[in-house]
Amino acid sequence: MIPQRQLIPARKGAAQRVRKGQTVRVINTHGSQVVDFWAFNAEDLGECMSMEHSRASLLRIIPRVGDTLTTNRRRPILTVVEDTSPGVHDTLIASCDVYRYAELGFRGHHDNCTDNLANALQAIGLKRVVHPAPFNLFMNIPVKEGVSVSFEPPVSRPGDSISFRAEMDAVVAFSACPQDLLPINGVDCVIHDAHFEVR
Amino acid sequence: MIPQRQLIPARKGAAQRVRKGQTVRVINTHGSQVVDFWAFNAEDLGECMSMEHSRASLLRIIPRVGDTLTTNRRRPILTVVEDTSPGVHDTLIASCDVYRYAELGFRGHHDNCTDNLANALQAIGLKRVVHPAPFNLFMNIPVKEGVSVSFEPPVSRPGDSISFRAEMDAVVAFSACPQDLLPINGVDCVIHDAHFEVR
Repeated sequence: MIPQRQLIPARKGAAQRVRKGQTVRVINTHGSQVVDFWAFNAEDLGECMSMEHSRASLLRIIPRVGDTLTTNRRRPILTVVEDTSPGVHDTLIASCDVYRYAELGFRGHHDNCTDNLANALQAIGLKRVVHPAPFNLFMNIPVKEGVSVSFEPPVSRPGDSISFRAEMDAVVAFSACPQDLLPINGVDCVIHDAHFEVR
Repeated sequence: MIPQRQLIPARKGAAQRVRKGQTVRVINTHGSQVVDFWAFNAEDLGECMSMEHSRASLLRIIPRVGDTLTTNRRRPILTVVEDTSPGVHDTLIASCDVYRYAELGFRGHHDNCTDNLANALQAIGLKRVVHPAPFNLFMNIPVKEGVSVSFEPPVSRPGDSISFRAEMDAVVAFSACPQDLLPINGVDCVIHDAHFEVR
């Protein structure tokens, strides 16, 4: 059966429950869209996929195929099973939020990944209890000389995808990052839809 | 007035309220002790010093003198005003916890930085509401080729210290990391007291 392709609308979020053993594929439909990505234990949303715990066990800043991401209780939650992109993703940078856009000089309301997570969970009847640091798919934050970082346009291409096997019953959530003041979603600063599939 | 030197007992934590403008000096008394370090808005412990938000504004993995760490609301909370150590600290790795020691094969209870934060706050009448990724002072986690990390012994020396100016009324907390299964606290894997001063 071909899995149904689900929308992550440009500037907004989406969330879905997945069962242990299912595969989640996140597709960079237009090629240059960063997707903030989170996962939670379906039985306890206080247990979340954690970048700082995963880095400690993987001994890598950027997970690659075969790597298992862990929760804040050091339990396996998702394993990277395929990555057709160049493998450039980010675990270092916080989700954007209203404070970030204010800091960058934007006035008024701006869509942001932090609110998108809360809204995406709410749309499937769940309430966020923690806001973990995200796994920023396709986001290009090179680390130079072991210490400096910079915000660069994605190197992914249209249709690139990264796939994860769920290691527990989980809730996964996505945000098509609305950052249009920096070229993190491409030099044209245009925000695009992305998609995901669960099979 | 010479500030009183306060104990961070080996394997345990400590916490204290500080006022905006005060300076917190954290001293590596014996030279090779990692100190997990956290800070919270004194008025709202849900607002915490955040490594993922600070990296985004500093564009650095390791803060240095002059850098201002920010909270999960992107507000200044602490500025590094002096560092007599070689400047090797870590913002990438989670606090140790009971799950970490189980993962490393330890049986039974092991002191850990995660519980130490909760206990240190409780000892001054406060309740932890979030457990942020720590600023691991003196912890040596080199990043190689932009992606790989490793756990190495500290390069700090006895009496080295790092000092912070509080940019808001804050609660600061420390844990003399009890990790004695890896050489992160020195090749002898012996855990030592550390100290702090507020002036």
